[in-house]
Amino acid sequence: MLEKYVPILNWGRHYSRDKFGRDFLAAVIVTIMLIPQSLAYALLAGLPPEVGLYASILPLVVYGIFGSSTSLAVGPVAVVSLMTAAAVGRVAQEGTADYASAAIILALLSGGILALMGLFRLGFIANFLSHPVISGFITASGLIIATSQLGGLFGISSHGHAMPELLASLTQGLGQINPYTLAVGASSLAALIWVRLGMKQTLVQLGMPAATATLAVRAAPVVVVLLAIGASYIFDLGGLGVALVGDVPQGIPLLSVPSLDFDIIGALIVPALIISIVGFVESISVAQTLAAKKRERIDPDRELMGLGAANIASAIGSGFPVTGGFARSVVNHDAGAATPAAGMFTAVGIAVATLLLTPFLALLPKATLAATIVVAVLALVDFSILRKSWNYSRADFVAVMSTLAGTLVFGVEVGISLGVAASILVFFYRSSRPHMAIVGRVPGTEHFRNIKRHEVRTDPHILALRVDESLYFANARYLEERIANEISGRQDITQVILMCPAINAIDMSALESLEAINIRLREQGIGLNLSEVKGPVMDRLKRTDFLDHLTGRVFLSHHDAVAALTSHGP
Amino acid sequence: MLEKYVPILNWGRHYSRDKFGRDFLAAVIVTIMLIPQSLAYALLAGLPPEVGLYASILPLVVYGIFGSSTSLAVGPVAVVSLMTAAAVGRVAQEGTADYASAAIILALLSGGILALMGLFRLGFIANFLSHPVISGFITASGLIIATSQLGGLFGISSHGHAMPELLASLTQGLGQINPYTLAVGASSLAALIWVRLGMKQTLVQLGMPAATATLAVRAAPVVVVLLAIGASYIFDLGGLGVALVGDVPQGIPLLSVPSLDFDIIGALIVPALIISIVGFVESISVAQTLAAKKRERIDPDRELMGLGAANIASAIGSGFPVTGGFARSVVNHDAGAATPAAGMFTAVGIAVATLLLTPFLALLPKATLAATIVVAVLALVDFSILRKSWNYSRADFVAVMSTLAGTLVFGVEVGISLGVAASILVFFYRSSRPHMAIVGRVPGTEHFRNIKRHEVRTDPHILALRVDESLYFANARYLEERIANEISGRQDITQVILMCPAINAIDMSALESLEAINIRLREQGIGLNLSEVKGPVMDRLKRTDFLDHLTGRVFLSHHDAVAALTSHGP
Repeated sequence: MLEKYVPILNWGRHYSRDKFGRDFLAAVIVTIMLIPQSLAYALLAGLPPEVGLYASILPLVVYGIFGSSTSLAVGPVAVVSLMTAAAVGRVAQEGTADYASAAIILALLSGGILALMGLFRLGFIANFLSHPVISGFITASGLIIATSQLGGLFGISSHGHAMPELLASLTQGLGQINPYTLAVGASSLAALIWVRLGMKQTLVQLGMPAATATLAVRAAPVVVVLLAIGASYIFDLGGLGVALVGDVPQGIPLLSVPSLDFDIIGALIVPALIISIVGFVESISVAQTLAAKKRERIDPDRELMGLGAANIASAIGSGFPVTGGFARSVVNHDAGAATPAAGMFTAVGIAVATLLLTPFLALLPKATLAATIVVAVLALVDFSILRKSWNYSRADFVAVMSTLAGTLVFGVEVGISLGVAASILVFFYRSSRPHMAIVGRVPGTEHFRNIKRHEVRTDPHILALRVDESLYFANARYLEERIANEISGRQDITQVILMCPAINAIDMSALESLEAINIRLREQGIGLNLSEVKGPVMDRLKRTDFLDHLTGRVFLSHHDAVAALTSHGP
Repeated sequence: MLEKYVPILNWGRHYSRDKFGRDFLAAVIVTIMLIPQSLAYALLAGLPPEVGLYASILPLVVYGIFGSSTSLAVGPVAVVSLMTAAAVGRVAQEGTADYASAAIILALLSGGILALMGLFRLGFIANFLSHPVISGFITASGLIIATSQLGGLFGISSHGHAMPELLASLTQGLGQINPYTLAVGASSLAALIWVRLGMKQTLVQLGMPAATATLAVRAAPVVVVLLAIGASYIFDLGGLGVALVGDVPQGIPLLSVPSLDFDIIGALIVPALIISIVGFVESISVAQTLAAKKRERIDPDRELMGLGAANIASAIGSGFPVTGGFARSVVNHDAGAATPAAGMFTAVGIAVATLLLTPFLALLPKATLAATIVVAVLALVDFSILRKSWNYSRADFVAVMSTLAGTLVFGVEVGISLGVAASILVFFYRSSRPHMAIVGRVPGTEHFRNIKRHEVRTDPHILALRVDESLYFANARYLEERIANEISGRQDITQVILMCPAINAIDMSALESLEAINIRLREQGIGLNLSEVKGPVMDRLKRTDFLDHLTGRVFLSHHDAVAALTSHGP
């Protein structure tokens, strides 16, 4: 029983020397990748860089205990960091102690929400973030994040978490460009872009084996950071006006219980919910893809518990909201991670780095971290979803555009809410007019088909309507209207047959509509009959008095219905 | 073309002496019924009683021009009046000129929203108010309205538009009960209840023909009002502390264009939207029921235009939001109304009453109007929906309870919003785990059935899964999980076949899920095949590159699929 919620009790029992070797190698590679990213994402969240390191220690250990994915690499990620900045920026001033403490509360709330969703099996809530909404949101977030880092690259101050404010503040600051910052930022950016696009090919051409070249590419961003620190020391970049990371407290903060302020909790609860769901959706998607490669399975409810525990741990370790990162998880998997222990070893690596590296980090130019972020998030920007959804269905296109435009103009929370609202509205709009067909008999057979598509025979006294969708509140009234329209002015009709083989469910609203239809037809001397009603639907109807009042009958086959009603008449 | 939007051009051309006679009689009966109700509902809305008369003149004329129902009796109704009081009470103090002007703006906004919904064919928005939500809302509103009138019956002041505040203010006021008011209120209430429950039977027993008795019952509330005015004059009830209607401006206000204040418009736009939808749903439902009795049809979009025009007219005539009333419309229909002219004649009747009756109305005790309201709204309270929905489906029960409890505790707007949110959540929750069945061949046939319900044969290398619902964002991820679960640990499976005869649509999220499933299965060396895909679904899939990347094939029949994959293997 306990093993279900604490998977480590299961895989820990079968841990082997071989698995240790694979996990250790993966951990070394992920640690090297995570150091610059964790510093950069903390800055993106508006927090001191060391907080990114804190958020990469305890959460990884705790996820290793409670999480079920053997590949997922948990930690700070770009989109969630932007969402943290937007949420916390509304309740506190960046750079203050209140800001850091609000970020901790946000992680705690987010962890609590995830854990509760797991406990009560509410993972279905994540379904509201449809694929078009997620795609539009990630692309818009990538653009906002990249734009927000332009200030850091140019050495000018900018603020805002949506495009209008960001662009306005960048335009205002254009006069203050610091040439040295620009030089550091531009060369870091160029180096990182080369690392991503051309380095592997060059190394292979120089004779390096492909596998070694891949490893070198993954370690290269740390080398860029080290070079930037070196340059900063040699040229005294700080003295030339280049913004540096500055003094970072050495060591790891003692485990702390965050102090709780109910006003701040009230203001952060909705952002925490959105962050939880976005983080979960991102995380579960990569976890399932990687699990499939190993023929393993991911239980979404247990993943909710694992991510929830990781976020609560992040709060206790003075961090900020974390989730499973896409790129890092793929690297972790490719490097051979065999169990969640890989994440625990990564945590050890980050802890060691935190203890040893902090004296050097003071010299790191912030522009280099900004370049790290820009290169990471540009991979998120993908406009192909616009063309793809336009071609596939206008409804999905509306959802993409609402989310994309909403996020760019109004920020992350409004954008995602608009997207969800648009998805729901469009869904109900489309299903409010379900496909229905008037059917007639294919001559010489017992088959009944759409009169518009086939040569069929109909009886002038019978209206036979096939409903091609489940009946529920969104389309119940349309059925009433459709039948009223078909009947109106047709004095010859004495029997209506609803052919129901495609109706998987009838909710209470639709039941009321059927009752209203029955009564209205009765007023006109017309009988209402049903044919080919599915078993579960029939079971439910039998629990009501609808069948007692039905003016007509229920037939097992539509053929029986037409035969009975044609021969006997009304 | 014009006739489509202005139905009077159509029926007006064929108007006859016979129709005039029927419309005139219906108008007389409805006018007598409407006079006390319009006064009472204006008080319920927090407005001076004469405003109820104003709202019963111009809107009826305009609905007669633009409306399509031949039976609908438009005017002030109880639930919309309560909603008006709740909305306007938030932006202005009852009894002030600002309050009356905000009510006019609310009618104007509501009319504009309805007309726009009609113009852009957005009637489907009304579908969000499912039957359980409407039932719960009407019952809760009836209870709130009845409770709010207890103050008027007892002669104590009460305030609030939800139960907690109302009950608290009533309890506080218990000491101020005026015995004369109580006497007037109790006797009015007793008289009206007898009119409703026992009068017809008594008259018939006394030898009156049933039809005449029905007419007498309908006229009786006006007699109660006249008796109350007489008693007020004879006993000088005003001098005894009984609250009277007081001086009412004589005549009808000149047509006015309401003055617009953007702050107030901003505060009223959401309430106006909710009032529009609730009013429309109530109105269209009774209009369709009555139209069916005459084999006529109602076009919802034209009804939206008709009701929208009526509300704009109400604003111009210094009124407040109106809609089609259930009880009055039934009376109008039963009395023989043949065309919308019946409503126009009713408007003339109310206009004449407004000009002649106002001197007498000053003496009318407000307690009598409170009794009128209580008797009218108790007919709305119907708890049977609780038992009915509990028996039929827990999901619908949740929607009823959310709306009922939300409305009672937090008021009309929060209540209905909670109900809609609950309906949507429950709907997506239920459809997030669609029915799927692993199928096998019924021996000796080409039929494939659920392995859990039938004796069937399966191939150990083939997983054949029938999906019994359309695939879209709410259930796409569940399909991914389900397939991953079925595959996990089953090394023998080499082919997956999705049997799709019940899939009416695949949205973009589901397409992405199918692509993810295809890639994940490919990683494991398993082919993904589809069988019995419906035509429209296949057309849409062909617009994408999904079929190019599909590792397996698409088969017309499931039998073909199994035959092909069994013989050739992977």
